Amino acid sequence: MKLSQIASQLGLELRGDGETEIAMPAPIEAAGAGMITFAVGRKYADALSKRAAAAAIVPPEMASDAPCPVIVSANPAFDFARVLGLFFPPLRPSIGIHPTAFISADARIGENASIGPYAVIQSGVSIGRNAIIHPNVTIYPNVRIGDDFTCHSQVSIREGVMIGDRVTVLNGAVVGAEGFGFVEYQGAVARIPQVGTVVIEDEVEIGANTTVDRATMGATIIRRGVKLDNLVQVGHNCEIGEFTRISGQAGLSGSVKVGKWSLFGGQSGCADHVTIGDRARIIAQAGVHSAVPDDGLVGGTPAIELRTFRRMAAVEPRLPELMRRIRALEQRLEK
Amino acid sequence: MKLSQIASQLGLELRGDGETEIAMPAPIEAAGAGMITFAVGRKYADALSKRAAAAAIVPPEMASDAPCPVIVSANPAFDFARVLGLFFPPLRPSIGIHPTAFISADARIGENASIGPYAVIQSGVSIGRNAIIHPNVTIYPNVRIGDDFTCHSQVSIREGVMIGDRVTVLNGAVVGAEGFGFVEYQGAVARIPQVGTVVIEDEVEIGANTTVDRATMGATIIRRGVKLDNLVQVGHNCEIGEFTRISGQAGLSGSVKVGKWSLFGGQSGCADHVTIGDRARIIAQAGVHSAVPDDGLVGGTPAIELRTFRRMAAVEPRLPELMRRIRALEQRLEK
Amino acid sequence: MKLSQIASQLGLELRGDGETEIAMPAPIEAAGAGMITFAVGRKYADALSKRAAAAAIVPPEMASDAPCPVIVSANPAFDFARVLGLFFPPLRPSIGIHPTAFISADARIGENASIGPYAVIQSGVSIGRNAIIHPNVTIYPNVRIGDDFTCHSQVSIREGVMIGDRVTVLNGAVVGAEGFGFVEYQGAVARIPQVGTVVIEDEVEIGANTTVDRATMGATIIRRGVKLDNLVQVGHNCEIGEFTRISGQAGLSGSVKVGKWSLFGGQSGCADHVTIGDRARIIAQAGVHSAVPDDGLVGGTPAIELRTFRRMAAVEPRLPELMRRIRALEQRLEK
Repeated sequence: MKLSQIASQLGLELRGDGETEIAMPAPIEAAGAGMITFAVGRKYADALSKRAAAAAIVPPEMASDAPCPVIVSANPAFDFARVLGLFFPPLRPSIGIHPTAFISADARIGENASIGPYAVIQSGVSIGRNAIIHPNVTIYPNVRIGDDFTCHSQVSIREGVMIGDRVTVLNGAVVGAEGFGFVEYQGAVARIPQVGTVVIEDEVEIGANTTVDRATMGATIIRRGVKLDNLVQVGHNCEIGEFTRISGQAGLSGSVKVGKWSLFGGQSGCADHVTIGDRARIIAQAGVHSAVPDDGLVGGTPAIELRTFRRMAAVEPRLPELMRRIRALEQRLEK
Repeated sequence: MKLSQIASQLGLELRGDGETEIAMPAPIEAAGAGMITFAVGRKYADALSKRAAAAAIVPPEMASDAPCPVIVSANPAFDFARVLGLFFPPLRPSIGIHPTAFISADARIGENASIGPYAVIQSGVSIGRNAIIHPNVTIYPNVRIGDDFTCHSQVSIREGVMIGDRVTVLNGAVVGAEGFGFVEYQGAVARIPQVGTVVIEDEVEIGANTTVDRATMGATIIRRGVKLDNLVQVGHNCEIGEFTRISGQAGLSGSVKVGKWSLFGGQSGCADHVTIGDRARIIAQAGVHSAVPDDGLVGGTPAIELRTFRRMAAVEPRLPELMRRIRALEQRLEK
Repeated sequence: MKLSQIASQLGLELRGDGETEIAMPAPIEAAGAGMITFAVGRKYADALSKRAAAAAIVPPEMASDAPCPVIVSANPAFDFARVLGLFFPPLRPSIGIHPTAFISADARIGENASIGPYAVIQSGVSIGRNAIIHPNVTIYPNVRIGDDFTCHSQVSIREGVMIGDRVTVLNGAVVGAEGFGFVEYQGAVARIPQVGTVVIEDEVEIGANTTVDRATMGATIIRRGVKLDNLVQVGHNCEIGEFTRISGQAGLSGSVKVGKWSLFGGQSGCADHVTIGDRARIIAQAGVHSAVPDDGLVGGTPAIELRTFRRMAAVEPRLPELMRRIRALEQRLEK
């Protein structure tokens, strides 16, 4: 592809030789002849000057000093992601419903669907246009799904779950299983029927083998643009605000409320009924036991303000030394 | 449904107007006109007095002061769970074996079974009465399962596993895969054949995408009434006592022995060969490295007695301050 | 089986009565009449002297003092694993492709394959000899797999993944799903296309419900002999060196580089772009935020040298006491 073609498809300004042939995109540390990369900030600029990249996507302030032809972008990382999409269009199975897919007679599937072998779509399900449903998926009865749904193999969508437009569910995820609600009685443990559902809004992505439990009553709600990584657990009756991202193996207990644009690090956890604000950041492996305010930044178990946690963690390894110093002080005072 | 009908179906005493129409059950924070809820203790009583619930299930001591008709129960939470079951009977696929289910000629399936599309039941399997097996389940050879088995989609039950009555396995769980047993030899790593099995007793529930490994030799044992949440890992040769509950993303290494009625918090873990007593409680994210006695209550990594952990955690953020105070003391003594 | 037959099949020296009948292998704590076990070191020797085992596999230095006939081995644990294999040959489904398996017309499957019901093998896939593919597996287009592949039910292998010889993937694992790469733009979050792949070298084993993400660009690489336990997360662009073992529920963020023969404990985690050396050991639940050198041994969050972590953890519970002692010192100095 010629650089000018790329610039034109992105709708961005080109500076330098548009005839430059681009064979593939590459990250800055691997960018060489024939490759286009992107650069933001001083560190990238230095790296770019040392690489023989054929072209780069850069912000306006780096455009004049670049050692190669550039495409000028207000958000180079985003526009580089678009270039990746130009070179590697996503896998799109051919349109059509495989003859072995089991689709209930009363399920409604929109136009342009691609449904793979042995997918199972049960009674009362409705799915919008352009759905891609990979093999061996199971969609339980009465699920309602919007347009442009992508569902990878081995996924289970449980009965009555509601899913918006442009949602992607990666392999093996489970949406709408019964949450961990039990009650003790007479020396035994009884399940509390989980009669609620899950609502997944538009543009949500759910990672591989992640589990999102249905509500006990009402709905577990995953708002627009939320991204869940792999092996994440979302308990019953949680509500996760728009564009919040939750990294791998993190877990929310029941009835956790999370605001918009918050970030959970890997393996972090949150106790039940806790409220977390907007733009909060929970550091990897943190264990949140009480409310986190808007813009809060917490780490540790139990989670505390991150700056405090870091200072504390810096001193902790010196604890044996501190104990010795206390003992020495005591002995001197004894004398 | 009339309140008198509900009381009669529960077999419990009604106080107040039995003609009251109940449209649905609701938790106390959402209970309004036409809804039945439940209340236990002061906090709930206060909430109940502020809501316009049509009726409530309450303990005897709250029956006279309630602001609405009540059903009197020794265990309101349990009886409310039963009301949920009355209003929302569980999804029960129609009885019958779907023509696409693959069932080995020598598998034995009891009466009233419901088996979904593309379920696979292999040679030598025996399953009791009233089984519900959802689509795309795989049951390996020689598995033996009791009555009233519910198995959700995408589950794998490995060869030779033994399962009791009234067991539920949620979507994507894996029962009986090979545990993490390897031995080094001559600069390589060899698998130790895992020739044991898994025994699941009656009334066990296994959460979505949870994994229970088979024993190296002998059996991994999950006793009666145990409840495992989602994404839990149970290592080879573990034995989990009756009615113990393990929350999401918790993990037991190999050969852990857990007593009865114990509770594991989310993301907690236990090192191999550790013994945990009856009614023990392991707090979320705790890392247990040594035995926990009956009624033990532990937190932290490595896990210690919870009260000690909490006091320690309260002081930890002040560590930088303590270090400064020690330095100040040293300087004063120098003078 | 006679003991002499076992010794002969192992190719090892027998001392004692070769006519001894062996009914089954057993671990030392369960070994009794008719059973063969193994012993290494003092603790095992003591146990062996108290058990009525029919025979034992022991190292040369224990051969003369054993209370029963022995097989002499330089690596008793390894040779005992071989005995397990003699008594319990692994489940091997009969050779042949089940008529319900969906295999794309242009997929190539080597000889002696065993492919179960409802397995799906898509376009352009090539698989070597002796493959065992259990039911309900999904292999996406253009995957290339070597000889002696074992793939358990409900596994997903995503498009273009490359897998070597003698690889085993346990139930529900997902290899090659999109990693957690997103970029913010104009008040929304866009996916970064994940156009790389996963390379799995020879003799790798991947645990149940484990997820290995494809690279953003290039490849996530799992080198020869690596063993991943259940519910492990391996992020995009990670590279894991030969024979490294990662225990259950551990997680690697993106672009982590791990050396050879390292060990990760259960529920441990590693931040993105961190480098970990050869023969390093990451203790259970540790959170690694910076490089770990060859032979490094770390624990805690953030992870520090293990010896330091243990000393620190021993003092931590005494923090409230230390604070009181500091206060007492201050008060004495006040006076």
